[in-house]
Amino acid sequence: MRLRFRPVDGSFYDLLAQLAAQLVTGAALLAEVLAEGADREAVAERMRDAEHVADEFAHALFKQANSTFVTPFDREDIYALGGALDDVMDLMDEVVDMIHLYEVKQLPAMLSEQVEVLQRCADLTATAMPSLRNPGSLEEYWIEINRLENTGDRNHRRILADLFSGEYKAMEVLKLKDIVESLEGAIDAFEHIANIVEQIAVKET
Amino acid sequence: MRLRFRPVDGSFYDLLAQLAAQLVTGAALLAEVLAEGADREAVAERMRDAEHVADEFAHALFKQANSTFVTPFDREDIYALGGALDDVMDLMDEVVDMIHLYEVKQLPAMLSEQVEVLQRCADLTATAMPSLRNPGSLEEYWIEINRLENTGDRNHRRILADLFSGEYKAMEVLKLKDIVESLEGAIDAFEHIANIVEQIAVKET
Amino acid sequence: MRLRFRPVDGSFYDLLAQLAAQLVTGAALLAEVLAEGADREAVAERMRDAEHVADEFAHALFKQANSTFVTPFDREDIYALGGALDDVMDLMDEVVDMIHLYEVKQLPAMLSEQVEVLQRCADLTATAMPSLRNPGSLEEYWIEINRLENTGDRNHRRILADLFSGEYKAMEVLKLKDIVESLEGAIDAFEHIANIVEQIAVKET
Repeated sequence: MRLRFRPVDGSFYDLLAQLAAQLVTGAALLAEVLAEGADREAVAERMRDAEHVADEFAHALFKQANSTFVTPFDREDIYALGGALDDVMDLMDEVVDMIHLYEVKQLPAMLSEQVEVLQRCADLTATAMPSLRNPGSLEEYWIEINRLENTGDRNHRRILADLFSGEYKAMEVLKLKDIVESLEGAIDAFEHIANIVEQIAVKET
Repeated sequence: MRLRFRPVDGSFYDLLAQLAAQLVTGAALLAEVLAEGADREAVAERMRDAEHVADEFAHALFKQANSTFVTPFDREDIYALGGALDDVMDLMDEVVDMIHLYEVKQLPAMLSEQVEVLQRCADLTATAMPSLRNPGSLEEYWIEINRLENTGDRNHRRILADLFSGEYKAMEVLKLKDIVESLEGAIDAFEHIANIVEQIAVKET
Repeated sequence: MRLRFRPVDGSFYDLLAQLAAQLVTGAALLAEVLAEGADREAVAERMRDAEHVADEFAHALFKQANSTFVTPFDREDIYALGGALDDVMDLMDEVVDMIHLYEVKQLPAMLSEQVEVLQRCADLTATAMPSLRNPGSLEEYWIEINRLENTGDRNHRRILADLFSGEYKAMEVLKLKDIVESLEGAIDAFEHIANIVEQIAVKET
């Protein structure tokens, strides 16, 4: 509806794609820390490194948005996207860190299912970012993320019901609830990214 | 201060009113699930249905906001209002679902008081929505919601102090805290709606 | 980049400075309630008074922003700043109230360290507000707040690991977790203030 002319600027898309690629790495580390016999401390350290790399991409993105006169899409949407991608990374880092620091004994089997949802979200998001040049083409991506978030929500409630079933001690439930909630927060943050992308697409039409 | 001319579009107000009416239904179901001998599973199912109906009104609202060139008030305020009304519904659904899934034994008596606050908020909000055509007339509504939110906040702290008094086992406290916090979150979300309405009124003057 | 001409209006800065000064008072009360043998109820009451004073400054600020045609910086940034300063106060009030209401027996020693971080944030913020006239001069302030927030985050994780170490009973952990999380929330809210100040500075250049 609105007329726009904006010079194509590749590096915004590159930075967003590189930031999203770190989320794929982060989700893989999350799957790794759940495996039996995992060296949790070592995984937590690699996660911290991945988180720092993501931080640097985010800063580069914000800096460029600040110093560029004409951005490929609304400046505020660039901030929102960068911030939301960064949020996912922070939450995944938190989960790995808590599994390590809290010395959780028994991880509910259903956690792996939830991490699979997260990995699928990360893959889809990393694939979507380079297509932001043509946001209208990303409808399938945001519909699928919304579907995954619903699955994650159902998983989350089932995991909580399991935690409260009487099988775990109150102290273990306290630890696991924190972990499980940050995990769900990360999936929600992926949905938030998809919502921003949808809004960008709506504005471009 | 700013001059405006906007064609009156009835259906925005209708959709907001219908969405708000679902909150009255939801709050009633919440009161129902607290009653002794309630069939919690059946109530949870009716709640889920009410939540789906609310979702559909919200989607219709967003779709219309997207496709209408001139909206009766700022497009972003329509999104914010629809989103906030939807948040209340999600939180009420969550509360009913948790009471059912967690198989909570003993519900603190003070919960009913808190649900009464919520019902009062829902009634006021449903009554306010059709008057959005003249937002300046809604001052009493938003003042009363802010007052109710303060009451809800005080109730919330008293309920928490009660949970921690030693009368409940740690495991039951864990379950009840989740429920009680989502309940307070729903009251907060009603205040958020009132704040948006106040901002719409400020802009119109 | 953008040309601006705005009449200097002293009272916006005064109100922000007075609001921020209440945070210094609040942080001192927080330190006081942690001391052994403190009269927790009396401190909680003084905290509530400080919170009301802050509320009044915030309302005066919002009222003035509503009724002034040309504000010294973006109206939305004034709302955001006032709201964020108010958030810190609410969270500090919540912490003092919980320590009082929950009748916590043993407060982890590390809590004092965290309150020191909070006091440092309050001091820096109160010093920064009067310099908002020249926001570009505040770079050191927001960098230091970001550094303090990182310290607070590390403290927070160490406190949680301590709570889960087995030294505390599940019921005490439940109480302390609430307190510790609101404390961290207050530090996060200080970072949020710093981010808003940074954005104001960016726009002015």
